[in-house]
Amino acid sequence: MNKFARILLAVAATAAAVPAMAQFQKPEDAVKYRQNAFFVMSQHFGRLGAMANGKMPFDAKVAAENAAIVETLSKLPWAGFMPGTESIKSNAKPEMWTEKAKFDQGSEKMRGEVTKLAAAAKMGNLDALKAAFGDTAATCKACHDSYKVK
Amino acid sequence: MNKFARILLAVAATAAAVPAMAQFQKPEDAVKYRQNAFFVMSQHFGRLGAMANGKMPFDAKVAAENAAIVETLSKLPWAGFMPGTESIKSNAKPEMWTEKAKFDQGSEKMRGEVTKLAAAAKMGNLDALKAAFGDTAATCKACHDSYKVK
Repeated sequence: MNKFARILLAVAATAAAVPAMAQFQKPEDAVKYRQNAFFVMSQHFGRLGAMANGKMPFDAKVAAENAAIVETLSKLPWAGFMPGTESIKSNAKPEMWTEKAKFDQGSEKMRGEVTKLAAAAKMGNLDALKAAFGDTAATCKACHDSYKVK
Repeated sequence: MNKFARILLAVAATAAAVPAMAQFQKPEDAVKYRQNAFFVMSQHFGRLGAMANGKMPFDAKVAAENAAIVETLSKLPWAGFMPGTESIKSNAKPEMWTEKAKFDQGSEKMRGEVTKLAAAAKMGNLDALKAAFGDTAATCKACHDSYKVK
């Protein structure tokens, strides 16, 4: 490889790295960000579960509001699983990094189910909400079982 | 007050308490929730600030996405400032509780500015974004100065 090609590659690598680097001031922020986004999401998802499981009275408006928040939040945590955070203490198992493509597929599947969940919640039909909640919860559990320390 | 009136009042008080209690399993979750929602919001607000301050290239699409996330998140933390969390260690000053009505006004003002910020970001005009970012940041600072431990 000649000198010019090496410089081009170096510039390209730097340019590609900028967006991810620019998102968080330090790797610790990326870990905190993904953990915090998951926690906030879990609180709203839990309220849908309480309705789906009959522990809270079903309220179509409240269900739709919570599902919309879950939908927004479901898109966020993934940016926090960025290169440079592998060695920072968290509940991510090492397999999460070695099987990153599979992990990303799992996250994509979850977001797909959450989209259906938000649509179901808008319908104001408890049975539809129950089914969509169950499908979504299964995608959470699949990734937690494989990639999250218990 | 007769016995029937006392029972009615007790039932009404319990019913009124249910929604807030039901939102969080324990007071510690409420504190964690508000802190986490603020942190996630701050990350996205910070990206708007980086664009407003010329530290990141202005990208209308990215600005609009981040502002929409800030708008959703700006509605969340307040539920976490619920009765029963006053004595839990956090960065909330005691004044936050003794001046709760003023604190609530500050939060309302912030949400109003965030709505304008999201509208400005959608316009794709950097000057509008700068102005709205400054107005919003001022509402953050006002509450932090009065009610958040440094």
